[in-house]
Amino acid sequence: MRLLNILIFFLTISPLALLSQNEGDAIFIKEIHDHILNEGKCYSWLETLSEEIGGRLTGSDNAAKAVEYTGQEMSKIADQVTYQEIMVPHWIRGAQEKTHIVGSDGSILRELNVTALGNSIGSGSQGVTGQVAEVKSLDEVRSLGKEKLSGKIVFFNRPMDPTLVNTFHAYGGAGDQRVNGPAVAAEQGAVGAIVRSLTTLTDNLPHTGTLRYKEGVPTIPAVAVSTMHADELSKELSNGPVILYIETHSEILSDKPSHNVVAEIKGSEFPDEIILVGGHLDSWDLAGGAHDDGAGCVHSMEVMNALKALNYTPKRTLRVVLFMNEENGLAGGREYARISKEKGEFHLAAMESDAGGFTPRGFSFDAEDEMFAGLYRQITALSPFLEPYNLHFSKGGSGADIGPLKNQKGLLIGFRPDSQRYFDFHHSAADNITAVNERELKLGAAAMTSLIYLIDKYGLEH
Amino acid sequence: MRLLNILIFFLTISPLALLSQNEGDAIFIKEIHDHILNEGKCYSWLETLSEEIGGRLTGSDNAAKAVEYTGQEMSKIADQVTYQEIMVPHWIRGAQEKTHIVGSDGSILRELNVTALGNSIGSGSQGVTGQVAEVKSLDEVRSLGKEKLSGKIVFFNRPMDPTLVNTFHAYGGAGDQRVNGPAVAAEQGAVGAIVRSLTTLTDNLPHTGTLRYKEGVPTIPAVAVSTMHADELSKELSNGPVILYIETHSEILSDKPSHNVVAEIKGSEFPDEIILVGGHLDSWDLAGGAHDDGAGCVHSMEVMNALKALNYTPKRTLRVVLFMNEENGLAGGREYARISKEKGEFHLAAMESDAGGFTPRGFSFDAEDEMFAGLYRQITALSPFLEPYNLHFSKGGSGADIGPLKNQKGLLIGFRPDSQRYFDFHHSAADNITAVNERELKLGAAAMTSLIYLIDKYGLEH
Repeated sequence: MRLLNILIFFLTISPLALLSQNEGDAIFIKEIHDHILNEGKCYSWLETLSEEIGGRLTGSDNAAKAVEYTGQEMSKIADQVTYQEIMVPHWIRGAQEKTHIVGSDGSILRELNVTALGNSIGSGSQGVTGQVAEVKSLDEVRSLGKEKLSGKIVFFNRPMDPTLVNTFHAYGGAGDQRVNGPAVAAEQGAVGAIVRSLTTLTDNLPHTGTLRYKEGVPTIPAVAVSTMHADELSKELSNGPVILYIETHSEILSDKPSHNVVAEIKGSEFPDEIILVGGHLDSWDLAGGAHDDGAGCVHSMEVMNALKALNYTPKRTLRVVLFMNEENGLAGGREYARISKEKGEFHLAAMESDAGGFTPRGFSFDAEDEMFAGLYRQITALSPFLEPYNLHFSKGGSGADIGPLKNQKGLLIGFRPDSQRYFDFHHSAADNITAVNERELKLGAAAMTSLIYLIDKYGLEH
Repeated sequence: MRLLNILIFFLTISPLALLSQNEGDAIFIKEIHDHILNEGKCYSWLETLSEEIGGRLTGSDNAAKAVEYTGQEMSKIADQVTYQEIMVPHWIRGAQEKTHIVGSDGSILRELNVTALGNSIGSGSQGVTGQVAEVKSLDEVRSLGKEKLSGKIVFFNRPMDPTLVNTFHAYGGAGDQRVNGPAVAAEQGAVGAIVRSLTTLTDNLPHTGTLRYKEGVPTIPAVAVSTMHADELSKELSNGPVILYIETHSEILSDKPSHNVVAEIKGSEFPDEIILVGGHLDSWDLAGGAHDDGAGCVHSMEVMNALKALNYTPKRTLRVVLFMNEENGLAGGREYARISKEKGEFHLAAMESDAGGFTPRGFSFDAEDEMFAGLYRQITALSPFLEPYNLHFSKGGSGADIGPLKNQKGLLIGFRPDSQRYFDFHHSAADNITAVNERELKLGAAAMTSLIYLIDKYGLEH
């Protein structure tokens, strides 16, 4: 009965009691929303990040500019801004990526809209040519084997499942084709790979993203093709064999130094309990990276900005961390956690926003197994404060950059905006500021600020 | 203690019990979602309604085409389609609506983007000219009085409150300026009215909508001005007096016959218990009326279509009603209720979708006071089935067209999609199919179908 009692307590008594006892919190959360909706800076920061600076892939000049710009902005708000040096991979797309169906006389029969996958090698100007083998899974590649695939170009064409309401689940269910498909195809002797873009749309833009080669397996050129052209290629294949030509000029250069941006306000009562909020500064190069993850960066910056503007003094140390290299390496997240461990730090809570700047739906929570029940019970006791804003709490993941902090045994939090339109823009040339609604972005920042405020004020028994 | 017991029962026991006893329902609701996301027709219907037919203001040829098209489509699905004749007002915009600031030499100093308000009279080609008096409220008009406002053009410039998270509340808070402002200004001797567009955006499109004149008070020309130009006009006024010229050619023609479209599947067990789902067919003339309320029409059509496609036989009589004339008269909703009362019908539940085709957030419920508690308790007992789809139930309004059915003492339901972007498009030239995301539209239809199914299956004690 004990568990049921607790359940009933939290479901029926506690929220009401909490609300009546803490009217001041409800008022402050309303002030947070009012401030951000009226005067929030996140949208204007995002315009600079996404449109003036633009795509900022790890290692690029734009990535360095983004570090400088956000660091300067945060230095107007934080007590202290540090630039945490990290070595990052440096992949460049190169010019002139192209793919076409080759006619029997060697002519160009039909051009396909493609873009090289991140971290892929280039074909060079001689390109790769091969007969196309369409597959729906990595297992199918393995079962076809070398006999059927040697010298071929493998075409991964399993769509994202449109019936999954959470589009991130659909992404997760199809992503193996892009991440591991090229390496698995190469293992079976393929000379190139072409992957259906990971989007819920039928559009004519290729959506890039990173791949992983396998040690000891040849590296082969690999591209993403627009879903429209994937459908056309599949239709061509139903009429008979198709020869494809793929030419890319991407290169993996030497690692180079880059930075995480870490902005901090020291806690007034519990400086050793760190509350982190962050996103990743790097983005793909095809667009401004407005949703992925410009939105998460400016959301996080706004959290500190709003609390400061409202004269709130954090009891605990508040850190805004803008991570470098989430997209093709996670060097920033790993190095941040390594240094944190070295210093013996404790992150009471870490929140990441890396799911776009859409209308907020709530938060998902994660923690080490032995800590989870207790932390989740405590955090859900705070949820009534956010119900008037239609924000809901759930168990689930948090974010790639903060994942390495899990072993510090604090609470990991994923900000969860609505997911329906995310993959319309994700990793394609469409991920620009025009895809972001200002109110939706600001409401996201306000939701995050409200929860960070509650955690700072009430703390978490751990 | 009784109430608390019930509360605890529904909060903690009932949903789980319900879910385990009714796994079949959870499976069927998943099938509804799968069907609509994979094969739903709502988006393609909307393309026809919004783009091929286009804006369909009451009395227009397009409105008649929309009646014919949707009636034909529903006759492929329903047992029976009837066209309920109603007399509707017939307002036309006329050509050449224009407004400019007049220079001291009578020249055009600056054109403003305006559009006539629905049901407003035209100025004719002589236009109206007057000095502008900016106000923030109807009370301000009354307190300025005839002395200050005679012969003037009153400029209503109170923005929608951006801090209200539900944008419909902000709309409600500013809408009196458009609906009643012109009549109140005329009472004080004004010769014209110009109203800040009701949108949360700063954009350069005028957003129209209906006004109401007052009996015994002169009718004056009235226009909506884009929020950008409202800001500019206000700035001009801060520099000194401004003379405005307004020219509109709108006309109120004689009432004419039009139709509600009523598609029905007779209930197999309780044919006298009607479950209605509907939206309104008419839309403003500046765009295709994709969100307002093409979305609500195709949502409703999809409910019947999906249940039929999944071979579900409704126990209760299912009616899809596409109402005419919600925008500038409500003749359709009133006449439907009048006929229903005359026939002694009983609507167990009526659901309206008239808040756009955005990602679904849930439903709000309304009923006669003495019925509300009982109906709300029963309906919330069904909410666990919809929680996996992030749908939430709340008390609140339903819809204008179904409002007149309230005295039948059934449950009234408003479908509630996310409201953040609604007023970006509402009543302006931007309300086209490009503003609608196909997944969001389909998820809305799936949410509505799921709840209609549950109500049909379990009924409501009344």
